[in-house]
Amino acid sequence: MFRFPSLILSRPLHRRKLFSTTSQPLHLPLSHPIYIIWGSNTAVGKTLVSAGIAASSVLSSSSPSQFHYLKPLQTGFPSDSDSHFVLNKLRHLSLLRNPRNPLFASLRVLNASPAVNRTLETDLFSRFSGEEGASGALELVCKTLYAWEEAVSPHLAAEREGLIVTDSVVLETLHGCFEDVVERGEGKERSQVLCVVETAGGVASPGPSGSLQCDLYRPFRIPAVLVGDGRLGGISGTISAYESLILRGYDVVAVVIEDHGLLNEGPLRSYMRNKVPVLVLPPIPKDPSNDLIEWFESSQSTFSNLKEIMLSAYFERIKKLHEMPREARDIIWWPFTQHKLVPDGGVTVIDSRCGENFAVFKAQKAEVIAPLFDACASWWTQGPDAILQTELAREMGYAAARFGHVMFPENVHEPALNCAELLLQGVGKGWATRAFFSDNGSTAIEIALKMAFRKFSVDHGLIVHCDQDTTNKRSTELMVLALQRSYHGDTLGAMEAQAPSSYTGFLQQPWYTGRGLFLDPPSVFMHNNTWNISLPEGYQRKSLKVDSINFASRDEIFHKGRDNSELATVYSSYIRNVLSSFQGSKNIGALIIEPVIQGSGGMHMVDPLFQRVLVNECRSRKIPVIFDEVFTGFWRLGVETAVDLIHCVPDIACFGKLMTGGIIPLAVTLATNAVFDSFIGDSKLKALLHGHSYSAHAMGCTAAVKSIQWFKDPCSNPNINSETGLIRELWDNKMIHQISSHPAVQRVVALGTLCALELKAEGNNAGYGSLYARPLLQKLREDGVYMRPLGNVVYLLCGPCTSPEVCNQLLFKLYKRLEEFSECKN
Amino acid sequence: MFRFPSLILSRPLHRRKLFSTTSQPLHLPLSHPIYIIWGSNTAVGKTLVSAGIAASSVLSSSSPSQFHYLKPLQTGFPSDSDSHFVLNKLRHLSLLRNPRNPLFASLRVLNASPAVNRTLETDLFSRFSGEEGASGALELVCKTLYAWEEAVSPHLAAEREGLIVTDSVVLETLHGCFEDVVERGEGKERSQVLCVVETAGGVASPGPSGSLQCDLYRPFRIPAVLVGDGRLGGISGTISAYESLILRGYDVVAVVIEDHGLLNEGPLRSYMRNKVPVLVLPPIPKDPSNDLIEWFESSQSTFSNLKEIMLSAYFERIKKLHEMPREARDIIWWPFTQHKLVPDGGVTVIDSRCGENFAVFKAQKAEVIAPLFDACASWWTQGPDAILQTELAREMGYAAARFGHVMFPENVHEPALNCAELLLQGVGKGWATRAFFSDNGSTAIEIALKMAFRKFSVDHGLIVHCDQDTTNKRSTELMVLALQRSYHGDTLGAMEAQAPSSYTGFLQQPWYTGRGLFLDPPSVFMHNNTWNISLPEGYQRKSLKVDSINFASRDEIFHKGRDNSELATVYSSYIRNVLSSFQGSKNIGALIIEPVIQGSGGMHMVDPLFQRVLVNECRSRKIPVIFDEVFTGFWRLGVETAVDLIHCVPDIACFGKLMTGGIIPLAVTLATNAVFDSFIGDSKLKALLHGHSYSAHAMGCTAAVKSIQWFKDPCSNPNINSETGLIRELWDNKMIHQISSHPAVQRVVALGTLCALELKAEGNNAGYGSLYARPLLQKLREDGVYMRPLGNVVYLLCGPCTSPEVCNQLLFKLYKRLEEFSECKN
Repeated sequence: MFRFPSLILSRPLHRRKLFSTTSQPLHLPLSHPIYIIWGSNTAVGKTLVSAGIAASSVLSSSSPSQFHYLKPLQTGFPSDSDSHFVLNKLRHLSLLRNPRNPLFASLRVLNASPAVNRTLETDLFSRFSGEEGASGALELVCKTLYAWEEAVSPHLAAEREGLIVTDSVVLETLHGCFEDVVERGEGKERSQVLCVVETAGGVASPGPSGSLQCDLYRPFRIPAVLVGDGRLGGISGTISAYESLILRGYDVVAVVIEDHGLLNEGPLRSYMRNKVPVLVLPPIPKDPSNDLIEWFESSQSTFSNLKEIMLSAYFERIKKLHEMPREARDIIWWPFTQHKLVPDGGVTVIDSRCGENFAVFKAQKAEVIAPLFDACASWWTQGPDAILQTELAREMGYAAARFGHVMFPENVHEPALNCAELLLQGVGKGWATRAFFSDNGSTAIEIALKMAFRKFSVDHGLIVHCDQDTTNKRSTELMVLALQRSYHGDTLGAMEAQAPSSYTGFLQQPWYTGRGLFLDPPSVFMHNNTWNISLPEGYQRKSLKVDSINFASRDEIFHKGRDNSELATVYSSYIRNVLSSFQGSKNIGALIIEPVIQGSGGMHMVDPLFQRVLVNECRSRKIPVIFDEVFTGFWRLGVETAVDLIHCVPDIACFGKLMTGGIIPLAVTLATNAVFDSFIGDSKLKALLHGHSYSAHAMGCTAAVKSIQWFKDPCSNPNINSETGLIRELWDNKMIHQISSHPAVQRVVALGTLCALELKAEGNNAGYGSLYARPLLQKLREDGVYMRPLGNVVYLLCGPCTSPEVCNQLLFKLYKRLEEFSECKN
Repeated sequence: MFRFPSLILSRPLHRRKLFSTTSQPLHLPLSHPIYIIWGSNTAVGKTLVSAGIAASSVLSSSSPSQFHYLKPLQTGFPSDSDSHFVLNKLRHLSLLRNPRNPLFASLRVLNASPAVNRTLETDLFSRFSGEEGASGALELVCKTLYAWEEAVSPHLAAEREGLIVTDSVVLETLHGCFEDVVERGEGKERSQVLCVVETAGGVASPGPSGSLQCDLYRPFRIPAVLVGDGRLGGISGTISAYESLILRGYDVVAVVIEDHGLLNEGPLRSYMRNKVPVLVLPPIPKDPSNDLIEWFESSQSTFSNLKEIMLSAYFERIKKLHEMPREARDIIWWPFTQHKLVPDGGVTVIDSRCGENFAVFKAQKAEVIAPLFDACASWWTQGPDAILQTELAREMGYAAARFGHVMFPENVHEPALNCAELLLQGVGKGWATRAFFSDNGSTAIEIALKMAFRKFSVDHGLIVHCDQDTTNKRSTELMVLALQRSYHGDTLGAMEAQAPSSYTGFLQQPWYTGRGLFLDPPSVFMHNNTWNISLPEGYQRKSLKVDSINFASRDEIFHKGRDNSELATVYSSYIRNVLSSFQGSKNIGALIIEPVIQGSGGMHMVDPLFQRVLVNECRSRKIPVIFDEVFTGFWRLGVETAVDLIHCVPDIACFGKLMTGGIIPLAVTLATNAVFDSFIGDSKLKALLHGHSYSAHAMGCTAAVKSIQWFKDPCSNPNINSETGLIRELWDNKMIHQISSHPAVQRVVALGTLCALELKAEGNNAGYGSLYARPLLQKLREDGVYMRPLGNVVYLLCGPCTSPEVCNQLLFKLYKRLEEFSECKN
């Protein structure tokens, strides 16, 4: 019965990743109620509460017929064994109250440390009593998952006794027990089975790896009961423990305290504003010889209440999970969504997220909360792993409590100042001197355009009496120079700077005119193991040798030495031609580009040499240069800023999305001093009269400060090479080559956290409106991967901290499904 | 020496407001370091730590010469008296170590409950020893602010013994002690004086009113030392207590624990990521007869470290506070700000906010952190009082931990769904059926315009082959019908819908053309005690009687009976005239208005009758109607939606700002089903292809759910009349009348949370760019009121929960300064 742990590992320096390294997805079954029992401290009576819930099943008739008691971490074993305690109490109670229909009980200890005395009666490791399957009997299953001898915190016991288990192994073992709950409960009604998981010590007591238990168990996010403290000081301890659970996103359905005559329940109820019930247990006899049977009887009504609360919260949750898709369809208006095309069952209920994973409700074969890797990085914003998420949550609580929101003009607060400093030292390093905050990428672009046009107007003498300009006279029309397939946001000003597309027709935006000169840029991609540059019409490609447009490695493409290549000349003459043919009363007032990768346009990689040549041509004409780094910034492409890839700097740049780690909207427009100076004058009317109420809001800036520091610090981000300061290669080169040679694949771009591929498609199957990729992505959902297509372009997007192992698993799954997909199409 | 408390009040049902009811502003002096000592539980050694910090001054030479020990709340008195303990220990130590230079010590108990035995030696209430001012001697000042006899939590003792004190009285008493610290410390160097405030019990133990102490002391936000727990279970208790402090915006500079041999410091340091030092004290002798002198000596180096940490954190803070304005000027680019016009000393350092108050750094006569009433409601977003702010902070931590951000299209999560439901049942009640989320007011407007134009195009047959429209052909030009002085946001689409203004010139936005027909609306205001309607040019006013444009009360203006008035006819003929004279190939595709109050345009109240007539005229022409409620929504005007004031509904409405309680950006565009239906079809290209990455982000939706419920619930918002469901009148009518008759005042508008007034001004002194109001507002800053002008229009904006008493104080201060202002102008 007893088996040694399969994994004994060395003590971690930092706590290990919670989730991403488990070998199988960690489902939380919903077939029957499962609860986790937390204590506000050690010795507040968690085990009595667990036993009491079970006891109320013995003492009442209309109760669950199966009770699972799981104790993942037990120290002080075997003299302390909470499983034993529960089992003994329940047997005793059952014999007294139900002599004719005895309890069927079993106990197992799954793993024990080498220090645990093996000469003890086996009874302590495995025990059965009663007859399995006796009708009407209560079935009690008690399991201790890991046991150590010393009565200290699990992390110390684990270190001292040599049974060290990683977080993911604890979770997998627990997951196995949950599967057992499902199996044994098959055919039973929902309320006939109840499972409780009892934690060790307080909510933030360390587990065996050193991770706090409230963090360790977080991927399951099991609904919770908190056993509080009825003693002097217990109000505070209970509230603080509750807040630690809240700060990890747990739902607490009830608080239970022992009555110590101090009426602690009063302030606790007032704190809870009656939203979480606070139950009071009669005083527990202190005499060790007391068998507590009377106490269990006298607390029966309280436990019965507690069990009712647990059951009804469970049923309410199940009901809600089932109803949510329909309710959402009825009242939500989703962005970028043709509601008529959302298939039945096509609405995903996201119950929570943990690091890179969604936890979604699935109700196919069995009802579960299942993890899905969020491969659209929640639409290009995500960065946090599970650890950073917890830290960000705490920071968000702090920033909200300290600042809420405070208005910005002529004011300063720490988060905004710190954030601005980090931005200028990081993504704006070497060129930017000013930070202008706003709410999202689109607003950051509108601000950037206003800045650029002013700079251009000042430089080119378009503004004469600038301090008195209230006449709304327009001396000239200003245009942008931009690229085909570009995308800069959905507000009108940002749209005007992009080329006509599906987004810009009369149907979508009757006011769009397209105020730009749109160049057709050369794109780069991998196909059949080779990196190629594809030159559109209009370039003088005749004289070019093959090796100037084919590359063996991606790095060659970013090489600065290409400035002297033949291709550079081709590019500059193309650009000059287009610019010189541009006539009339209009001026090019700004260049705006997404450096290296055009995101929404279909994950196209533009030849960085082309963009560099373009920037230089504009600079020589005093045309301000805007980099739209809303998608590319903050390690998205494996570098903090795409400037590090294209080796030239802008006058203005926009950032958003990943800037806050992806937790909250905030954007910034950075600018040079020369740009800033063009707004300085004696009149307020010369200032940049643009702003949003939540400019530089404290929560956003706080999140940005935390995330910017976290991503670039090798101590917190294992992907950062501490020498180069760059992110290691996340996508396996071999696998990428293999995919690029797949017959169903048109092109591949893998760079930084992005791996995109275009599926070969023709006619209606190609383009933004296409549903071509849908079957492929549906299959990948079954594999635990959540992707969102851009027409026939699909992509995997991870975070700057995601491990290459996880990325590999994703590539592998994708490749496997590609095979099926192309077979099915043939 | 002993005095009875001046205020004995009945027990509050809910905890009382923390801050707004204090009779004087609560400054935290910065002349010398002040710290608050928290415990992770009761009996973890807070008093020993306080005494130890003081002791290290006795035992070392280069230390503070004055030590203030403040114990605001003492129960179990006089047998427990932490002040006595500190005083006795320090005297003892001083006699042993510094016999030639004895300690000058004093002790006072400021207030004691009637139950405290008065026959006891007076020594317990007031004691002096040593000689004041002896050079080089340590001066020890111990004060117990409130004492109760029973050794229970202060809220119980207070109730049982009759010494009940409100939070504000505790704070005022503490503030008095701080003033004493400043006074006694005058002339001494910063580091020569140290003050510690020792709390009672754990961080979340209730104070005498029932408020948790971490909430009670929050307005001061005193830098903190946390005494943690070195016992079994102490890791958890310490971390949870720390998190409760973080969740209230405190800065903890150090954690101290007693060594119990469990190495709790390891996990604590790992949790803190070495950002907060964790100090370990030697085991405290358990023998009650031990005088601890040896223990104090053996812990001297630890306490000395701790004191160094406290001092250096203090100095760093002072330095930072002084540097921040300059740093901000160097790298920040503020919205709507002419940097050249920001005067020296004109940058405000906002250290935190608590409810409606900023806490700002002031360094004029003395350096303090001082409260300022945020009368611009942080630019129109704010709603929370101090209690809601704390609850929102907890919710923000929860939402970030549970969801971070998850992407929205075709997905659903609880906060978004709950928020959408509350919106449709609240501000959208009776007409809206769909919620489309975005990031701010400006984006919500851009979305609304796209919705309206589509609806108009479908209704008027402008779209023929809508599923295949990728040609970008424009069959007609669509315009909006809008009002002069309107403002709808700063992105181009929103700007195009507003009339030309200072914001729209070539200098600001070269792409602005003004795609609207802009009506000049009649405005309403109070002047000389009368509500007047002012009709612009173009209205047939000849036949109107005076009583149709003058009103004795504001309510009459909102009366629906006015539909049949003469004025209604005047309005409708004006509108018809303008519309019929509108010719050519252009169509009016939408009406967009700010209902009742035009905010940015200068806080103008538009006659609600005019807007109602206008809506009806548009509806009869099948022109979709948009209400821009970004400013007016969510109780800003005393009703949840301005629909309740103008008595007609839109087809589309935009909300933002106060929706989240003002803590985080989120916006929504609500629409009718008919509008939604015009986007339904077989192609994705017919869908509304607009969206932002953070659409319906979980934190924003969670904040909105909490705030929407909070504001309308009489249990949480004392301003809500539980019968009418409306907010009570916040601005004193008499005072408003008085102000409206003031010679310096052109007009007044008081409605809901808004009280605006236009100063009489001419020429350059009028208008948006004017600095005319600046001297008035600077004076009001001295009075603790932070206002921001709109040119020569100034306003007070409070939150939906702000008490009328506070509003009255504001009006009073404003009136007083108006007198000065007008004298100075004359």
